[in-house]
Amino acid sequence: MAKGKQVYAFHEGSAKMKALLGGKGANLAEMTRAGLPVPPGFTITTEACLSYFEQGGSLSEALKQETADALKKLELVKSQQFGSPTAPLLVSVRSGSVASMPGMMDTILNLGLNDETVMGLAALTGNPRFAYDCYRRLIAMFGNVVLGIEGHHFEQRLNKLKNSLGVRLDQDVPDYGWQRLVGEFKAICASRSERAFPQDVHEQLHMAIEAVFGSWNNSRAQIYRRINRIPDDQGTAVNIQSMAFGNRGTDSGTGVIFTRNPSTGEARLYGEYLMNAQGEDVVAGVRTPLSISAMEGEQPGLYAQLASVAQQLERHYRDMQDIEFTVETGKLYLLQTRNGKRNAKAALRIAVEFVREGLLTRNEALERIEPSHLDQLLHRGLDEQAVQAVLAVGLPASLGAAAGQLTFDADTAAQWHREGLPVILARPETTPEDIHGVLASEGVLTSRGGMTSHAAVVARGMGKPCVCGCESLRIDAKGGTMEASGIVVREGDWITLDGASGRVIVGNVPLREPETSAELLEILGWADEVRKLRVMTNADNPHDARVARAFGAEGIGLCRTEHMFFAPDRLPVMQAMILAETDAARRSALELLLPMQQSDFEGMFREMDGLPVTIRLLDPPLHEFLPSAADLQQRLAGAASGQSAGERRELTALLRKVNALHESNPMLGQRGCRLGIVFPEIYDMQIEAIFRAVAECLEDGVAVLPEIMIPLVGHVNELSFLRGRIDGMAAQLLGEEKLKACRYKVGTMIEVPRAALTARQIAAHADFFSFGTNDLTQMTFGYSRDDAEGKFLSHYVDQKLLPENPFQVLDTEGVGQLIELASAAGRAVNPRLKTGVCGEHGGDKSSIFFCHQAGLDYVSCSPYRVPLARIAAAQAAIAFGNEGADGLKLEA
Amino acid sequence: MAKGKQVYAFHEGSAKMKALLGGKGANLAEMTRAGLPVPPGFTITTEACLSYFEQGGSLSEALKQETADALKKLELVKSQQFGSPTAPLLVSVRSGSVASMPGMMDTILNLGLNDETVMGLAALTGNPRFAYDCYRRLIAMFGNVVLGIEGHHFEQRLNKLKNSLGVRLDQDVPDYGWQRLVGEFKAICASRSERAFPQDVHEQLHMAIEAVFGSWNNSRAQIYRRINRIPDDQGTAVNIQSMAFGNRGTDSGTGVIFTRNPSTGEARLYGEYLMNAQGEDVVAGVRTPLSISAMEGEQPGLYAQLASVAQQLERHYRDMQDIEFTVETGKLYLLQTRNGKRNAKAALRIAVEFVREGLLTRNEALERIEPSHLDQLLHRGLDEQAVQAVLAVGLPASLGAAAGQLTFDADTAAQWHREGLPVILARPETTPEDIHGVLASEGVLTSRGGMTSHAAVVARGMGKPCVCGCESLRIDAKGGTMEASGIVVREGDWITLDGASGRVIVGNVPLREPETSAELLEILGWADEVRKLRVMTNADNPHDARVARAFGAEGIGLCRTEHMFFAPDRLPVMQAMILAETDAARRSALELLLPMQQSDFEGMFREMDGLPVTIRLLDPPLHEFLPSAADLQQRLAGAASGQSAGERRELTALLRKVNALHESNPMLGQRGCRLGIVFPEIYDMQIEAIFRAVAECLEDGVAVLPEIMIPLVGHVNELSFLRGRIDGMAAQLLGEEKLKACRYKVGTMIEVPRAALTARQIAAHADFFSFGTNDLTQMTFGYSRDDAEGKFLSHYVDQKLLPENPFQVLDTEGVGQLIELASAAGRAVNPRLKTGVCGEHGGDKSSIFFCHQAGLDYVSCSPYRVPLARIAAAQAAIAFGNEGADGLKLEA
Repeated sequence: MAKGKQVYAFHEGSAKMKALLGGKGANLAEMTRAGLPVPPGFTITTEACLSYFEQGGSLSEALKQETADALKKLELVKSQQFGSPTAPLLVSVRSGSVASMPGMMDTILNLGLNDETVMGLAALTGNPRFAYDCYRRLIAMFGNVVLGIEGHHFEQRLNKLKNSLGVRLDQDVPDYGWQRLVGEFKAICASRSERAFPQDVHEQLHMAIEAVFGSWNNSRAQIYRRINRIPDDQGTAVNIQSMAFGNRGTDSGTGVIFTRNPSTGEARLYGEYLMNAQGEDVVAGVRTPLSISAMEGEQPGLYAQLASVAQQLERHYRDMQDIEFTVETGKLYLLQTRNGKRNAKAALRIAVEFVREGLLTRNEALERIEPSHLDQLLHRGLDEQAVQAVLAVGLPASLGAAAGQLTFDADTAAQWHREGLPVILARPETTPEDIHGVLASEGVLTSRGGMTSHAAVVARGMGKPCVCGCESLRIDAKGGTMEASGIVVREGDWITLDGASGRVIVGNVPLREPETSAELLEILGWADEVRKLRVMTNADNPHDARVARAFGAEGIGLCRTEHMFFAPDRLPVMQAMILAETDAARRSALELLLPMQQSDFEGMFREMDGLPVTIRLLDPPLHEFLPSAADLQQRLAGAASGQSAGERRELTALLRKVNALHESNPMLGQRGCRLGIVFPEIYDMQIEAIFRAVAECLEDGVAVLPEIMIPLVGHVNELSFLRGRIDGMAAQLLGEEKLKACRYKVGTMIEVPRAALTARQIAAHADFFSFGTNDLTQMTFGYSRDDAEGKFLSHYVDQKLLPENPFQVLDTEGVGQLIELASAAGRAVNPRLKTGVCGEHGGDKSSIFFCHQAGLDYVSCSPYRVPLARIAAAQAAIAFGNEGADGLKLEA
Repeated sequence: MAKGKQVYAFHEGSAKMKALLGGKGANLAEMTRAGLPVPPGFTITTEACLSYFEQGGSLSEALKQETADALKKLELVKSQQFGSPTAPLLVSVRSGSVASMPGMMDTILNLGLNDETVMGLAALTGNPRFAYDCYRRLIAMFGNVVLGIEGHHFEQRLNKLKNSLGVRLDQDVPDYGWQRLVGEFKAICASRSERAFPQDVHEQLHMAIEAVFGSWNNSRAQIYRRINRIPDDQGTAVNIQSMAFGNRGTDSGTGVIFTRNPSTGEARLYGEYLMNAQGEDVVAGVRTPLSISAMEGEQPGLYAQLASVAQQLERHYRDMQDIEFTVETGKLYLLQTRNGKRNAKAALRIAVEFVREGLLTRNEALERIEPSHLDQLLHRGLDEQAVQAVLAVGLPASLGAAAGQLTFDADTAAQWHREGLPVILARPETTPEDIHGVLASEGVLTSRGGMTSHAAVVARGMGKPCVCGCESLRIDAKGGTMEASGIVVREGDWITLDGASGRVIVGNVPLREPETSAELLEILGWADEVRKLRVMTNADNPHDARVARAFGAEGIGLCRTEHMFFAPDRLPVMQAMILAETDAARRSALELLLPMQQSDFEGMFREMDGLPVTIRLLDPPLHEFLPSAADLQQRLAGAASGQSAGERRELTALLRKVNALHESNPMLGQRGCRLGIVFPEIYDMQIEAIFRAVAECLEDGVAVLPEIMIPLVGHVNELSFLRGRIDGMAAQLLGEEKLKACRYKVGTMIEVPRAALTARQIAAHADFFSFGTNDLTQMTFGYSRDDAEGKFLSHYVDQKLLPENPFQVLDTEGVGQLIELASAAGRAVNPRLKTGVCGEHGGDKSSIFFCHQAGLDYVSCSPYRVPLARIAAAQAAIAFGNEGADGLKLEA
């Protein structure tokens, strides 16, 4: 049972009481206190809601009594009586949770009408048409949201009535029409629910309150809370407010305004209104609402009043407002205000202009930016107006949008690309052998595989849009068709992918280009002034390096050298290296790879002139560069007739090698430095390529800051062994003078729990630690990401066994503990140790906050997320002050 | 360069100076000090050896000088001169490292002879035959070990000589024969090496010293050190000792004795000797040495002298000794003594008798036992005399030996077993579908798969011998044959497996039964008095529980419930449960499994009456209970003609399910509590079976102490969720009274790094932590055991990148750190938290030492290792005192 006060009149509350009064109630109270024209009313608290549930879903006598008392006071203020036939008080009943929740019951208007009071209202206003309009609305809303009758039953009746009257618009229905409809609506309630529409107005009120409370636990609300991570134990408040009538005549009306344009940020009122209408008419779509700009000409007084209220509210809340208003016979009433939702572009402009107007400080403006919304801005998107036939929806595996002509084959993709056609490559799943097709395509679509499938990883690495695991698609690659929900698309047809939503759309949908507005640049400038964390980028080629630098990256934090081997001219050489039967054959393949790697490194060093470039030596297991065993078996079995003996022998040898490389748990197998130690010639080639590139660049006066990173170290001996080779080769390849000019670093990924636990030993041999939070999360939790996400992980998150998906949001308790432990131990031994994060968490706001607090020096993320990371890093510095990171003090 | 003294006369050293003087030198010194008859001599230190290497392999002038000085003193004592033609001093030169090392140069005798001194020796002894015998021996030994000439060149000459002289035995060769051989041997040296045999005796000595030093780094010695984990930087000492001649006539001789019988432990001299012979003659096999017991009758005086020396040395060293002696013209000399090697059985008897004789305290005797040697005793072994045709050698995957008739098919194995035939099942690899065949077999053989393959794991679990990954075997299951190195064995033929060595032997080799001697029981009794760690067992069925209890197990620390599902009558039900398309179908399969599980649990509770039984809920991923995808595809593809449409449908459905359950990294996938949480009905069935069994047992007055263990917990919520279900079901199924009688516990495996890191939270919901060190090692290192062992791990251990294989010896630095961290954090929150280890490390001595030091309460190991663990736990308590574990103070 709630102990304290369960009901607050609006004038008793304030915006600070949001937890108790809900968002709507707190703002109504705040506006009331600010002297704004709010129809009086009161709020039943969220605590009352929770005790309602504790009591098994019944209203306590105490609550009923408090509500009755509040109603009495409201009657006094309004000089009306609830249920009175002569001066009936009518109220609206609206839910009001702490966070906005569209899944819940929203509004019942005109509550307090019954067969008697409706006549009183008619007499009082001299407007029976108005009174019965209100009454029919009440019955329909009450029938729908309290009695649970589907809305279309009422709509059908209304349409029938209008047809029989020969009118098109509600406002043309005469009073007797509404009167007839009231009778019919009551009949619907009686027949379609267990209870009739109650004539007792107090029963109406109690039932409505219970319906609001109950809607907190309906399944839509539960799902919404789960998706949006809203706690289940907040409960909802109920707002009971005296009515203002927008449907009282042509000098009445209702509308919604934003104090600034939510799409562009422009500082002008934006919104819609409808005269002689009540709330839901605006959205019902029967009459087209007018733009608020029309009001300026038609009702300048009202417009000016609204503009003044808007400004007052904006200044009061120091944020753009979304306001509901009603005009009753010329008088303006405010029914709700809240911070207005806006898109990323508008958010930036509003933030900058608020700072200019002196409403916010720069830091306050920075804190207002939701970093993840920048993703919208910095990738291509769809022109949503043009989206028509959505064929299927898959997993949004790589951001951005792309349109092109469909093909099911990597070779064709490459061919069409050479011919200048934009291509979309669709495959059941991709393998390393399709990589040239991915390179040639605008975007990639697969019917199988998750967010970490080959297609997804490669596409993200290349910054190309990707939709994967689109299981409703049936791809018939041989037949050259693809089908979903009965629609068949053929090779060569245009399709469009939206990597942000996972949609696959038939046709060539126009794209919206990414926008780097002046406002964004201005805000990023402010961010750079406050942030302590450096922001580096993950980039595997000179192009990505250039893009990232333009976005403000302060160097490359992770260059995955394996991606370089997937290019179509390189993969065969890489495969030859792997398949080599002799050391000599392996060496000659490596000699072919050397100049390729060298030129990549040179390109990146030049793009990053003066900034550090962190190069990770080969990481994945070798079998990732070979076709799959299943694929080879199929080729061997399927086309037995069409192959020469030589081809069969070759396939058989390949299959034998693939089987020999097979691992039960490749994630925990022979990869990273384990590979580099067992086959030292591979790393030797990479190290040689790095220092040859360094030498070339130094000759040309480029300031090269190479940092060589050893992946998957678990024991200090692995690092010290490889560091010895690197230092030896550097001395040999650079010579004394260049060695002095090139202050290269050698460091390690910390991605194996044991590395974190033994950081003290490892740090003695490392210049930097880069926390590979993807793998570290996998091993610390014992989750294979590929397996977990499709199987138990979503169940865990849904059931709240885990607070978040730890691959999206860093687990600070477990994985974070290892990071803190390792960075403290490492620095104790080696005070100049540079530390950072280069997993996907480097682009996640809350993870960046953690990195700041843990005192790391940098985060590294994909090029398009660099701006996001700069802002998040600034927000972290504002939130936690300077105790954390001190990366900017370090030398480059 | 060595700083201090580099040469010690024997009387200057002692047994405590082993690191400096090597084992042999230290013992010679010790014997000298004890007044025993040791020919005088001196030792060049191991430090001198190390500085020899530092100086790039040349003898320093200082060392030469010190050696010359020592030689001078020796000349004085012996009244002989090195290189003197009149009274020549002859010496032996022998290596002597700290640990015994068969890979190194061992001995050169008679050094100091040359063309002149040999004549002096002849004159001095009046025995030219003896003198030239000594000389030819010196040249051959010197030629072989210093000049590097293979021994057979000398042997051939010797044989030729004897043929031409018409004699069979060396002792029948006359003086002129030896003289001729000396000439021929010198010629061999001159022609087969770069240097002739040196006539300068000092050059002989210096070259011999360098040869001993150099032999430290020959490849055999390096390999031996690697295998036996002997540090490379110890170096070897060199012992230079005046000669005693066993070849001086029929009243001279040489021999080796053990002070007690090394096979049985009996307290009687044991050994061999040969009169008129020098060292190597005893082992050369030309003349058969006599048993030392023969000496008792033939030379009672000498025997009595030897017996007295043996007793003196045993009392001095307080251990059984292995002694080399020489008799020169009736006088006994001791050339070496060391602790004698013995088998496990003898070790136990000797230890017990030493205690009875007052030579050792019980604790000292306990410290002498090498726990791993008990494995020999406690498993069946081969009668090695009867081993003839070894067909192949695979991995020794599960200890013990077995003989039986060969079959390649699980069904046949089961059939033959029913007919009472002993069967050996050989398969390329086993799958869960072969489990009834494994159950029916005496032992299992596979040609593929490592120490953690299905066959290996299952066989170890069942305590059956297993040889796996025997890749030289070609198994043709269809043809019913198996072939290796040209030998073909057919179905029905007898073969014998030795799980300890991995040998596969043709025929029915007699087996040696495991022995539990009275001495073992006595020692185990002593161990129980001192140890602090409890020793539990891993057992999955009542039979294993009984065996383990007989071996002294104090309860079951790990019962893997999944093993119960592999029985042939259960697997189909388990599969039906997995394949169920509806909840109802799944529930009805589970209802069939329930009574089966219940009866297993009852059986184990009864066997462990009064002791705790820890039951782990289902752990492995479900696909382990199904056939492999490859197998199903083959069945579908291969026998397309012979199958009905229904069968094909069934196979296709099965294949679909297997594919749906496929995981990229099953080790990190949906297993353990992840499975139990997503499909709660499986765990519910197991929990119900446990408490129903508890109720039955309580009715019968059995003292039941069930402990339910949740596998793979990584987040406290997993445990609290499942604990809630368990507590709820216990209350419901047991009722109030039985609930009071049954103080069940709920705990968790700590095998995911995150669980260890968040132990503080988890311990609040756990009654015990059982560290699953197998999985914890996999995840902390990021090693998939299945993949690592065959690929990089052996390379790492060979190259000393890792000190040990962490799956055999617990990695105290990383994995151990997590264990210490978790047990400290857990106990801080929950002081009554019980902690233990149940991985394979629970049976490894050094890991048990760690558990003691970390203060854990118990270890749990396989039944046959329980005695080993009891002894190791006692050794830990003796070594580290009582600071560690205090398990025995805990209630049961």
